Amino acid sequence: MLSKNQLKYIQSLHQKKYRQQHGAFLVEGAKSVQEVLQSDFQPELLLATETFYKENAHLTDHQRTPVEIVSVTELERAGTLESNNAAIAVVRTKENRPLLVGPGEIALILDDIRDPGNLGTILRIADWYGIRKILCSETTADVYNPKVISASKGSFCRVNWWYGDIVPVLSQSVANEVYGAFLDGDDVHTMAFSSSGYLVMGNESNGIRPEVGQYVTQRVTIPRYGDAESLNVGIATAVLLDNWRRKITSNGLA
Amino acid sequence: MLSKNQLKYIQSLHQKKYRQQHGAFLVEGAKSVQEVLQSDFQPELLLATETFYKENAHLTDHQRTPVEIVSVTELERAGTLESNNAAIAVVRTKENRPLLVGPGEIALILDDIRDPGNLGTILRIADWYGIRKILCSETTADVYNPKVISASKGSFCRVNWWYGDIVPVLSQSVANEVYGAFLDGDDVHTMAFSSSGYLVMGNESNGIRPEVGQYVTQRVTIPRYGDAESLNVGIATAVLLDNWRRKITSNGLA
Repeated sequence: MLSKNQLKYIQSLHQKKYRQQHGAFLVEGAKSVQEVLQSDFQPELLLATETFYKENAHLTDHQRTPVEIVSVTELERAGTLESNNAAIAVVRTKENRPLLVGPGEIALILDDIRDPGNLGTILRIADWYGIRKILCSETTADVYNPKVISASKGSFCRVNWWYGDIVPVLSQSVANEVYGAFLDGDDVHTMAFSSSGYLVMGNESNGIRPEVGQYVTQRVTIPRYGDAESLNVGIATAVLLDNWRRKITSNGLA
Repeated sequence: MLSKNQLKYIQSLHQKKYRQQHGAFLVEGAKSVQEVLQSDFQPELLLATETFYKENAHLTDHQRTPVEIVSVTELERAGTLESNNAAIAVVRTKENRPLLVGPGEIALILDDIRDPGNLGTILRIADWYGIRKILCSETTADVYNPKVISASKGSFCRVNWWYGDIVPVLSQSVANEVYGAFLDGDDVHTMAFSSSGYLVMGNESNGIRPEVGQYVTQRVTIPRYGDAESLNVGIATAVLLDNWRRKITSNGLA
């Protein structure tokens, strides 16, 4: 049974302002909670139905994480999901540490990706394609937004991010290739990729800002065979990473 | 100004049952309404703000389509979008006609894609990759659902669909290659594609049903370089079509 104060605290974490103030965020639903309990994130409270708790007690460090057994109604009142018959974890946010791309590594740069669903999907795609580092402009959606966490399907546990001014990062990174998604770039099917570097994805409506675009060393485009005006930014990220990985894998084999 | 009966009729079209009963569906927002007015769909009523109407009057056939000038409040009350300052078109649904894949043509088969957002995204992707025909199992989300129409970003005007039992379609289509997305298929990066055929995409949780899978002549898989368990079905559709188009384009050039 949740106290009024616990409920109020958990509900406050639906909002970015309070997530930042308290340094905590919500992970909701069976699969995501199971993943976060096995990750290096630090849970501060677990709300679970009796059934979920019984099946997952071995994942919980009782010394460190208090557990509240709650009803489905309480879970749905406290959280953001329309239906949740399993659990919510309240988890400490991580320190915002700079991330640099190393040799043989591909990193993503997100320039003002506003939609939380898109950001969550991009985390999942990054995780599929073995991308471990995502640099986000300050205007990019908050990764701790419950919609981002849900859409990432657990991938938020395996991908690292940093938020800040991406312009100086790019200006100081002259040794790396910087690929940027544009509508007028080279054909991603036929162009060459280096084994490491950055892929920059821009805002859903306006694309990459000029102050970021000036550091793009290679403009890339997904060839179009029909009439749609554009692809969703998550879809475009997946197709570009798929081509990048394919090329450097086949080069490595050749 | 909308009459009570008009409002009631339009709101009823939020539900599949009434869309089927009335043979009509809703297209909402400036961009989608502009596209539908220029397509071969038949609008039966246009609700528009004065501003939208003035800018788009040339797109409307006043002889055939009555226009109601309405407020933003009325638009938002009648429709499903949280914000809509432009227009809603009430449009006739099309007859459910069989679609067969022709020579040199790629068609999509959707086996039980349940999420309207995924279906809308798949229409947009199909349109980008020049796929004009989509065959949907009866359990696939209703293409006329307002969420599908919105997510398709106008591509519903350029792609054709058919709903029905896909099993006999496949069993009678022995001349065509049938590619199916599985987690244990051949690597889409290195395998060969024929210049025409079907791509089958399965349910978000359960994949392709066995009774459909038995007609798949080539199982395909997107190689994974990281740890995500799966990709979203829209993302997977885009990556598979991107590889298919790339291969048959480069074969054509060689």
